[in-house]
Amino acid sequence: MFFEGSEKKVEVVVSELAPSLRSLGKNYWSNIVSQANAEILSTVSNEQCDAYLLSESSLFVWDHHFVMLTCGTTTLVSAVLSFLESYESDQLLSLIFQRKNEYLSHLQKSSFSEDIDKLQQNLSGKAYQLGNLDTHHNYVYHLDKPYVATPDDYTYELLMYHIHGDAAQYLRSEHQSAATIRELLELDKLLPGFEINDFVFAPFGYSMNAIKGHQYATIHITPQEESSYVSFETNLDLSTPNSNVIERLTSILQPNSFDIISFNGIPNIQSSSHTLMNHVSEPLTCGYTMRFYEFMRSEPKIGRAVSIL
Amino acid sequence: MFFEGSEKKVEVVVSELAPSLRSLGKNYWSNIVSQANAEILSTVSNEQCDAYLLSESSLFVWDHHFVMLTCGTTTLVSAVLSFLESYESDQLLSLIFQRKNEYLSHLQKSSFSEDIDKLQQNLSGKAYQLGNLDTHHNYVYHLDKPYVATPDDYTYELLMYHIHGDAAQYLRSEHQSAATIRELLELDKLLPGFEINDFVFAPFGYSMNAIKGHQYATIHITPQEESSYVSFETNLDLSTPNSNVIERLTSILQPNSFDIISFNGIPNIQSSSHTLMNHVSEPLTCGYTMRFYEFMRSEPKIGRAVSIL
Repeated sequence: MFFEGSEKKVEVVVSELAPSLRSLGKNYWSNIVSQANAEILSTVSNEQCDAYLLSESSLFVWDHHFVMLTCGTTTLVSAVLSFLESYESDQLLSLIFQRKNEYLSHLQKSSFSEDIDKLQQNLSGKAYQLGNLDTHHNYVYHLDKPYVATPDDYTYELLMYHIHGDAAQYLRSEHQSAATIRELLELDKLLPGFEINDFVFAPFGYSMNAIKGHQYATIHITPQEESSYVSFETNLDLSTPNSNVIERLTSILQPNSFDIISFNGIPNIQSSSHTLMNHVSEPLTCGYTMRFYEFMRSEPKIGRAVSIL
Repeated sequence: MFFEGSEKKVEVVVSELAPSLRSLGKNYWSNIVSQANAEILSTVSNEQCDAYLLSESSLFVWDHHFVMLTCGTTTLVSAVLSFLESYESDQLLSLIFQRKNEYLSHLQKSSFSEDIDKLQQNLSGKAYQLGNLDTHHNYVYHLDKPYVATPDDYTYELLMYHIHGDAAQYLRSEHQSAATIRELLELDKLLPGFEINDFVFAPFGYSMNAIKGHQYATIHITPQEESSYVSFETNLDLSTPNSNVIERLTSILQPNSFDIISFNGIPNIQSSSHTLMNHVSEPLTCGYTMRFYEFMRSEPKIGRAVSIL
């Protein structure tokens, strides 16, 4: 029952002068997604964004900007290379490709190092590792081209490991309902007014896309007992003192550890139960400052071994 | 300059009625070692033990007991399978095979799961994971056969990650001498009366075997800046209140984090600078209680990203 909630993510901005990304249509994006070995499960749209829910993955497309996030052993880099065939390089304003540390990298179809070799054949970029090799870390590759982000252009990623408590127990049970999961996660309070599109996998696993105007949020849950992992990502402003999204999600899901990764925003983090172990801040030449925070539960975990044979 | 200090270890006990393991001779062990893609660099012996220093690895052979510990992309399981051809299964009293979590498991020649599949074709064993999948952990496979260890049969492994300070700086420099490393590590105090056999690799890296009567200790150092790793292992008694080996080594090497793994002994751990994050205690059916402790530096690490392209 092992599933690597190993997230790969790409965020691309194209010139306002280039053709609209949304106008490319669902067939175009369906083909891009298939390059990553994923498929479109369902779609919601509003006046600014098309949000595609994929098999344990997500794709958000705006007119001149898209974000794709994939899990498991998907080959996101192939999707990126396929996309690059559609746009001239001078139409590309920003490209940021990320991979988080993997539990079992030998089960992945490629390493980050192999991925960036492929990207470098088409682009000129830089790459970094944020966080220590022996614990949580995040790899980033970005197009080495100055880009001026608008003041409201920020992204927050919250990655939670080894969840506990009532919500975790429900998420590991069978016969779940999307409605109960939304309620457990308090989505009506955390994402007020968002249109929500979600999917419960069998026997378990949950994915959700939410959009409101140009704003988006996405959640992916891999609840398996010994390798549980939940990711939340949004372009909502989580920097303000009254933003409680991080506090609520970490309180509900009680992870053993969690990471926060931000682009440009400084997250408002309140946690009485977790301690900051590692913080990295890196101004990237592509115009974003990337921040990485690793938190671990303050109380030591005392337990037994996991039987594997 | 990446080198995975990924340790694999096997410890085997054969019956007192079986032929002496030492009597098999250097050629026999040289062949066993070659199955793991390692080679014997030098040897020291006393009346009870032959200690072979291998390429970033170690082998200690007593009359009815041996320990082999290998790093990098060595294939220790092949050496074990080759050894098993020499002894009848009823002569085998205990076999414990361990692998620590790897940074980059896709660079390894096999996974723990593949290794135990091979061992299970010859033996009947059990396997466990001690520690969380997302941070440090240790895999163990053991022969499922009751064995009564003598009261002085304990083993301690100290694994240190991301070392800092003067000693770390020297260990990363060029033109090191074994004498200076022994002095920095205070080996004359920590291992009084031991015969020491050590080797300095070019451009850096250090391995040491030490023996005294039936007692042994071994150190392997992979000092590379972003993936530094030092392991210490011994059958000395590190449980007594005045045993300061763990305290001294962690003070000298100032690791960002360290793990302690013990078989039967309860280590005396004093650390003002590190906090216990995770502790697992598992009584194994082979007669040993295996303990795992994961410590991390109490002060968060604040820094910059690692540039990789």
